[in-house]
Amino acid sequence: MEQERLEAIRQVKYRYLRCVDTKLWDEIGDTFTEDATVDYGTKAYGKPLKMTGRDEIVEFFRTNLGPDILTVHAAGQPEITVEPGGETASGIWSFQDTVIATQFRVAVVGAAFYHDRYRLESDGRWRISHTGYRRTYEAMMSLDDLPSFKLIATLDADAAAS
Amino acid sequence: MEQERLEAIRQVKYRYLRCVDTKLWDEIGDTFTEDATVDYGTKAYGKPLKMTGRDEIVEFFRTNLGPDILTVHAAGQPEITVEPGGETASGIWSFQDTVIATQFRVAVVGAAFYHDRYRLESDGRWRISHTGYRRTYEAMMSLDDLPSFKLIATLDADAAAS
Amino acid sequence: MEQERLEAIRQVKYRYLRCVDTKLWDEIGDTFTEDATVDYGTKAYGKPLKMTGRDEIVEFFRTNLGPDILTVHAAGQPEITVEPGGETASGIWSFQDTVIATQFRVAVVGAAFYHDRYRLESDGRWRISHTGYRRTYEAMMSLDDLPSFKLIATLDADAAAS
Repeated sequence: MEQERLEAIRQVKYRYLRCVDTKLWDEIGDTFTEDATVDYGTKAYGKPLKMTGRDEIVEFFRTNLGPDILTVHAAGQPEITVEPGGETASGIWSFQDTVIATQFRVAVVGAAFYHDRYRLESDGRWRISHTGYRRTYEAMMSLDDLPSFKLIATLDADAAAS
Repeated sequence: MEQERLEAIRQVKYRYLRCVDTKLWDEIGDTFTEDATVDYGTKAYGKPLKMTGRDEIVEFFRTNLGPDILTVHAAGQPEITVEPGGETASGIWSFQDTVIATQFRVAVVGAAFYHDRYRLESDGRWRISHTGYRRTYEAMMSLDDLPSFKLIATLDADAAAS
Repeated sequence: MEQERLEAIRQVKYRYLRCVDTKLWDEIGDTFTEDATVDYGTKAYGKPLKMTGRDEIVEFFRTNLGPDILTVHAAGQPEITVEPGGETASGIWSFQDTVIATQFRVAVVGAAFYHDRYRLESDGRWRISHTGYRRTYEAMMSLDDLPSFKLIATLDADAAAS
């Protein structure tokens, strides 16, 4: 029972991460509770990113992660604690991300630990009610420093979604 | 029961990935069904890599991933669905790879999502019946862009196998 | 039962890795048995790192991983075997690490497979009794090769610990 619950919570996180990197904006909203909050803490945008509500979160992704922005968000090492009552949980995840802004030839790489909260909703599904992270490091560089760097494959969003 | 099944499927994938990176070509065949198909979709070889049958797959690894090719194939975030009947399953995995061709001083890095199929065989073991991925990105570069880059350890295949 | 045991073993490894990267030296000792041994096998220090006993291990971390050393230790793909009797276990993990020595503008990146041993102690908790790895590769480079490389976030140890 406990293992099933942990697995269900991991699954919503995995789906969230896959939706981000394959740009499934119509599907990603369902991984969040309607009142979800996020605090991404990245400095790449010049300020911390705090958002409230599923709609604002999805709109952020749709606006900022267009086809020229390739992303990898990889999380593992889940330390999940289901709280008394069995309907809320918290989770810590190790995380590494790579963002390639192809038009600007800029790459951002980094690592962090996610500190999430999850809620079991009335339809029997766990969703993310809060997600945020604290950076281990984040670095930015121009691909002009690597003259031979050449993208030989990029996301085919239609193929990824099918 | 369900959790045991998921764990058994994850284990065959982990073994496959470890066999690739530590070059255990005598052992890797057992992670595939005899009729397994692969579709690696990498462009690094100039064309998609499609293969059929355990023997062809193992021969590909043995021929192409010699001691001068260092590889890291890291997969996580498994979204596995066991199908009705309990003897076949599908799985999606997040994936990142690094390949260093030491003789040519070339590095290939990338990310993808694996879309696998698994089958429970009559000896009670799950094997990979199909594996393939869709790229998030793949990039190639010459290590000549990083004059200070120096390998300070490489795979000792004998030690890795022991 | 078996799944609970595997999960408990994974949890101590995840906590160990998080303690390393967020520099929780007061907490990391509890992830090791008092007689634990380590054999990190990295060449970055010029020689293999072998240590015996929780105190020596914790002291090594405290001395060598100060605030100017940013680290990412990411492990996954756990292949854990609980031994007959149920009180000891072995585990193989895929592993990638990044170390940025900010003062020296040096980065070390690599991959390995951990070969660990675990023991269930009388307080009912699993701890690491041995950890070591065999390198797939390890490389060192100066960040001077990447003039545009700029750290835009670094670990805030106090925040990470809270």
